[in-house]
Amino acid sequence: MAQNDIERLIYLFSKIPGLGPRSARRAILYCLKHRDSFLTPFVEILNIVSDTIKTCYNCGNLDTQSTCSICTSQKRDKTTICVVESVADLWAMERGNMYKGSYLVLGGTLSALDSRNPESLNINKLFERINQDAVQEVIIATNATLDGQTTAYYITERLQPHNIKITRLAYGIPIGGELDYLDEGTLNLAFKSRQPF
Amino acid sequence: MAQNDIERLIYLFSKIPGLGPRSARRAILYCLKHRDSFLTPFVEILNIVSDTIKTCYNCGNLDTQSTCSICTSQKRDKTTICVVESVADLWAMERGNMYKGSYLVLGGTLSALDSRNPESLNINKLFERINQDAVQEVIIATNATLDGQTTAYYITERLQPHNIKITRLAYGIPIGGELDYLDEGTLNLAFKSRQPF
Repeated sequence: MAQNDIERLIYLFSKIPGLGPRSARRAILYCLKHRDSFLTPFVEILNIVSDTIKTCYNCGNLDTQSTCSICTSQKRDKTTICVVESVADLWAMERGNMYKGSYLVLGGTLSALDSRNPESLNINKLFERINQDAVQEVIIATNATLDGQTTAYYITERLQPHNIKITRLAYGIPIGGELDYLDEGTLNLAFKSRQPF
Repeated sequence: MAQNDIERLIYLFSKIPGLGPRSARRAILYCLKHRDSFLTPFVEILNIVSDTIKTCYNCGNLDTQSTCSICTSQKRDKTTICVVESVADLWAMERGNMYKGSYLVLGGTLSALDSRNPESLNINKLFERINQDAVQEVIIATNATLDGQTTAYYITERLQPHNIKITRLAYGIPIGGELDYLDEGTLNLAFKSRQPF
């Protein structure tokens, strides 16, 4: 029955992050209203992406090759590794267009509450690559959340025996940020990390 | 190239109402992370819905049959027609579970600004059905927006020569609404339409 198919599609659509049952319904009506201009190419490209996209065995990025275009690029510096939590974070760094090294996607964070331990993360690959690529700098770019920070400390701790430069992204006032609206934690860090003008 | 496919998918995803480029990226990462549990059934059901869902020739609802289950149901009163702007509005009425008549989906509103005229709407079908089904009541359930109201007035005007009861949904304070937060227009209408306690 049609209603069941539509109900099932609503259910699946509403599982996409950012969509609830109401916006899922709107999305489906949009799809059905724009069948030729939207739905057909949408299903087509979903099929292609579903069939071709693999996780890079070296860094955890998503690409058609089993080694991603960043890892195979001659222009990228393999002696610098930027450690990020997720592919979304890697994409965010790439959009910034300021980093020319390689990445390692952890695939999550440590979390005592949700009992996620180091084995659940892609950390072994980091040490493998450190030995193999003569890595000189590891940039910790985990999120500025409690779990992100815990993970950062854990990795830093484990990197100590290796004689490598370890850095992390700077904390401070975001561009456009107004002091009055900032939380005290950020303001505190921005003050402590103040720099010569 | 993979990146192009992903970029194209981001572009298509971000056209869905409720999703922007950022949430489209999150949606895609969700899809790729849950390939077997989400992406495969999602593409499957999208294909089914795309192939089977038709617009009901009688009322404009979406269903697998060319006459929808509401129009064919013996339990629905064909002498009452509820006029709504879109299929989304029809679904909202059905969720309310209070109406047992039939529908007519206009497929939009009149709009002087966007130059949408009566010909662009499914109005002729309304008059066809009024003659054919011995309709006794037409309930105007267009949105309480400027365009919705214009459309309501236009339809009411054209229905005058036919000797039919014409009603519209009541305006007033929504359940849970606080007077202090209501706009003056609603408050005004609620006051004017006050009823004996």
